[in-house]
Amino acid sequence: MVISDTGMPSPKHPALGYSLRGIIAFEITLHGPARDLHSGGFGGAVDNPAMALSQLLAQLRDKNGRITIPGFYDDVAPLSAYERKEYARLPVTDAALQKMTGVKKLFGERGFTSSEQRSARPTFEINGLTSGYQGEGSKTIIPSWARAKITCRLVPHQKPGHVRQAVVAHLKKICPPTVRLEIEAGHGAEAYLVSPTGPQAQAALRALENAFGCKPILMREGGSIPIVNQFKKILGADSLLLGLGLPDDNAHSPNEKFHLDCFEKGQRMSAYLWQELTRQR
Amino acid sequence: MVISDTGMPSPKHPALGYSLRGIIAFEITLHGPARDLHSGGFGGAVDNPAMALSQLLAQLRDKNGRITIPGFYDDVAPLSAYERKEYARLPVTDAALQKMTGVKKLFGERGFTSSEQRSARPTFEINGLTSGYQGEGSKTIIPSWARAKITCRLVPHQKPGHVRQAVVAHLKKICPPTVRLEIEAGHGAEAYLVSPTGPQAQAALRALENAFGCKPILMREGGSIPIVNQFKKILGADSLLLGLGLPDDNAHSPNEKFHLDCFEKGQRMSAYLWQELTRQR
Repeated sequence: MVISDTGMPSPKHPALGYSLRGIIAFEITLHGPARDLHSGGFGGAVDNPAMALSQLLAQLRDKNGRITIPGFYDDVAPLSAYERKEYARLPVTDAALQKMTGVKKLFGERGFTSSEQRSARPTFEINGLTSGYQGEGSKTIIPSWARAKITCRLVPHQKPGHVRQAVVAHLKKICPPTVRLEIEAGHGAEAYLVSPTGPQAQAALRALENAFGCKPILMREGGSIPIVNQFKKILGADSLLLGLGLPDDNAHSPNEKFHLDCFEKGQRMSAYLWQELTRQR
Repeated sequence: MVISDTGMPSPKHPALGYSLRGIIAFEITLHGPARDLHSGGFGGAVDNPAMALSQLLAQLRDKNGRITIPGFYDDVAPLSAYERKEYARLPVTDAALQKMTGVKKLFGERGFTSSEQRSARPTFEINGLTSGYQGEGSKTIIPSWARAKITCRLVPHQKPGHVRQAVVAHLKKICPPTVRLEIEAGHGAEAYLVSPTGPQAQAALRALENAFGCKPILMREGGSIPIVNQFKKILGADSLLLGLGLPDDNAHSPNEKFHLDCFEKGQRMSAYLWQELTRQR
């Protein structure tokens, strides 16, 4: 299996991915009053679901960037000294990452480098918040409900079912009695980790080097491609993750692009790859 | 000045309002990455503005329902023993309020009854939350920004400018360095409090009694009608707050209604009022 749906650090750093993060998705909705209430007539005596949701979510991450859900980090495979050394060689500095994303300051789990945080550590990410009035100006209501869309990235050895259960149990435990908690489960997938030492991986590395004219790197990918697990389970086949996306491609965002140079070299890489793989038969 | 834009506890409890809460409105926006980011590629190393906003808002109210912003309660006029006794006579039980609003459990500032919380105490209310993806299903992004629409209800003697300043100063102080804080100021108005003992108030009470056939009550209103302060300042005139709305009218919400019985008796009350006021001249 050959999949080009991952990334490379720069046009000068072609990469073979050997790991993907897994994922679980869900929606949390807190239901308060049966309908929006006049905030003058009722404000003060009724909990505000948007405040209740903020307080619920706020408790789930501490100031060190650690997820506080009991059991969340169970089964997380620790990084080996070898991998951490390899991570340290990745050509993305914190300064470059900050500039690329436009954030005022980076933030992540203490004790890990930003590259490790981006692909070897699990996350709890709010993808969307919705409550009450969202148009121009103001509307004086206590919203009837508040919702958060969540995805957690998982890392090798974490079990999506186990993590989901831990999240649900914790939310139920800390939800205040003034609102009704609804959790809707979305998709889920395990992480993927393969040793990039087999003959196909070696063929891929040679193809990358031929096409790009420089030594490729091995890297873990922070994203998720759930179907690789099915390829492995059903077909018994590992996947070659030969991604050609750049960090500034604006993936999943407006103005997404694909660098033409990567497109052209990617075509050459694919041609070389078939040659290399044929040679091995 | 005669204004019918307030409420009465039930069709059998016509009411003359003698106080309104004030208000300040504003929007808080936390800006994170320059655009939505792929939560796989960047998640873990970049703060999530929706989480940062949740953590910011969560700190503003404690578990006793007190607003934690330093200076927020400065100048709040305490309730007299006489007023608290009058409040206790209002015909709205907690059980009725819970049923009317449909909440699982009431919640408000400890040390005050729900009626007091609804009109004699200030509030910090989230009217709307907006961030990231809000459609069906999920979208794996770190949102570029997160926003909360806020209104605070103020009570007599609180100064809107002072409270606004206290809120802004506190938000600036506790905002984390990983996001950029933007605060947009909206409208503001002082609370209103008048002694309902003058000849106009007495005329209004008689008109209410004639129209509804039962003894009217005096009550503080939790809502805000900013223009009454201008009437007082510019024209030197107090306002008679002769509201005809019922608690279950769904004010500021879908399916808002107006009870026909209140409409009819309200017309009679208005006619009686002109008679009563003319009699006094």
